[in-house]
Amino acid sequence: MSIIEHTSLSITDFFKSLQNDICTSLELTDGKSKFREDAWERPGGGGGLSRIITNGNIFEKGGVNYSAVFGKTPEIIAKSFDLPEKSEFYATGLSIVIHPFNPHIPIIHSNIRYFELDNGVKWFGGGIDLTPIYIIEDDARFFHQSLKHVCDSFSPDYYPRFRKWADDYFYITHRKETRGIGGIFFDRLREDENCTFANRFEFVKQVGNCFVPVYTEIVKRNHYRNYNDKEKQWQLLRRGRYVEFNLIYDKGTRFGLDTDGRVESILMSLPAVAGWEYNYVPKKGSAEEKTLKLLRKDVQWSYEL
Amino acid sequence: MSIIEHTSLSITDFFKSLQNDICTSLELTDGKSKFREDAWERPGGGGGLSRIITNGNIFEKGGVNYSAVFGKTPEIIAKSFDLPEKSEFYATGLSIVIHPFNPHIPIIHSNIRYFELDNGVKWFGGGIDLTPIYIIEDDARFFHQSLKHVCDSFSPDYYPRFRKWADDYFYITHRKETRGIGGIFFDRLREDENCTFANRFEFVKQVGNCFVPVYTEIVKRNHYRNYNDKEKQWQLLRRGRYVEFNLIYDKGTRFGLDTDGRVESILMSLPAVAGWEYNYVPKKGSAEEKTLKLLRKDVQWSYEL
Repeated sequence: MSIIEHTSLSITDFFKSLQNDICTSLELTDGKSKFREDAWERPGGGGGLSRIITNGNIFEKGGVNYSAVFGKTPEIIAKSFDLPEKSEFYATGLSIVIHPFNPHIPIIHSNIRYFELDNGVKWFGGGIDLTPIYIIEDDARFFHQSLKHVCDSFSPDYYPRFRKWADDYFYITHRKETRGIGGIFFDRLREDENCTFANRFEFVKQVGNCFVPVYTEIVKRNHYRNYNDKEKQWQLLRRGRYVEFNLIYDKGTRFGLDTDGRVESILMSLPAVAGWEYNYVPKKGSAEEKTLKLLRKDVQWSYEL
Repeated sequence: MSIIEHTSLSITDFFKSLQNDICTSLELTDGKSKFREDAWERPGGGGGLSRIITNGNIFEKGGVNYSAVFGKTPEIIAKSFDLPEKSEFYATGLSIVIHPFNPHIPIIHSNIRYFELDNGVKWFGGGIDLTPIYIIEDDARFFHQSLKHVCDSFSPDYYPRFRKWADDYFYITHRKETRGIGGIFFDRLREDENCTFANRFEFVKQVGNCFVPVYTEIVKRNHYRNYNDKEKQWQLLRRGRYVEFNLIYDKGTRFGLDTDGRVESILMSLPAVAGWEYNYVPKKGSAEEKTLKLLRKDVQWSYEL
């Protein structure tokens, strides 16, 4: 395709090879199940490779999806950029959602993406966020501290901005709860007077690269822990909230479904099982109540330097 | 409230007393669990009574919710009717969703509602629709024939119009599947040159009154049937689709969540447990495949006379 520049090719290559690395690492961590692959084509141009893991030792259901699509710019995007009728776009990304069996291991989500229009506009987006069933404060601090470390090596501005963005984005308005403990989220990250395109790409690379070490550490800290029926029931309810967020608020999900995207790849983010209980109120002083109280914006998880 | 006319009071009374009748009948059918009650108040005016059944012999989770709310007309409605700033509204309704344990008994949903503005505009809405896990053609015909019978006693026009409306409304666009086998759906049913207000109300009454005999018959036909793990798994997936419809497309759910309605009453429609499987494809010739093939619009379930 004419608009793909040299940079887009190297971005695509990075996303593809990161997909391989992440799947290999997750299989090693799981120790039982392997990812299966589904290659798909997009009628308008491009396609993707969905990789799905199910029924592992540790992971109940998860997906690591790569896609690179291009062609005529969707009307909704063309309009917002005041583009001519025949404009073209190129978009590539990697999306990860992992649902473990053990309620002491959090759900994790990450996404990195690159978007390019033939008028020269191009940007990165992405982020990582964690959805614990039970919030473990030490793990939450480790998670945020790790992200802050990646951010700080690029700009002191990144972590505070992107952490707040994640809190605002992963918010279940009708519940007045955050989906989890947040993380970082960023979009439309373009080159500007302060930052080159190459530096933006390098940041996205490091966000992608930190997924495995960060999540593996959190899995290792908790996978051996036993759990009971009450904890599994709470996991069902927490997953129900996850489903509510993804189907009602998540822009990627809505955009994908509205533009006739590949349904199975979009909805791979949903858990194998989720539940709802009418008017569930956790017992005073319980671990469930403690978690619920921490599901709010602007909790200070990172250490101040 | 000033705008409540004599008719609104009798409508409210009917909805309230129907809630009682339906709950009593469902308790009798279930034989084990009783509805519990939650009265709630709406800050802007009015309130409701949610009645919830869980863990019965037959019913896993269900709700029969009555509400009557009034006050300043919500902006979104005021705008669409070009109303003055200080306009007031009155709305009352009864909503029912029942999720049985047994995958051979369908999920049922019904809603009847009345809306009145202080400029004199007033209308009814409502309907009943059925979501079988496995479509049983005899039951589907019985269900539609029963609704057609109610409709035909008012106008030969009602059933074809309202059946089509249900097919179009209960459609999961991204799956290209109907939620279930449809039923009837109608909205903004006002008095006109062909029909008095009293006659519209009488129709809504009969729709409300047919819920118990119709659903009880379908429960009786199937509750004794055994089921296995494969059928329970299919039930999880069918319920997953139900959740997708309610959270993505259902206008009542979205409107309720967007206008800060009572979350627990709105989301009582969700099942106790639902599931998702990546790229599930039913076996050729299986009962699951047969059902999937029938989840489409304009299946002719009623007998032609």
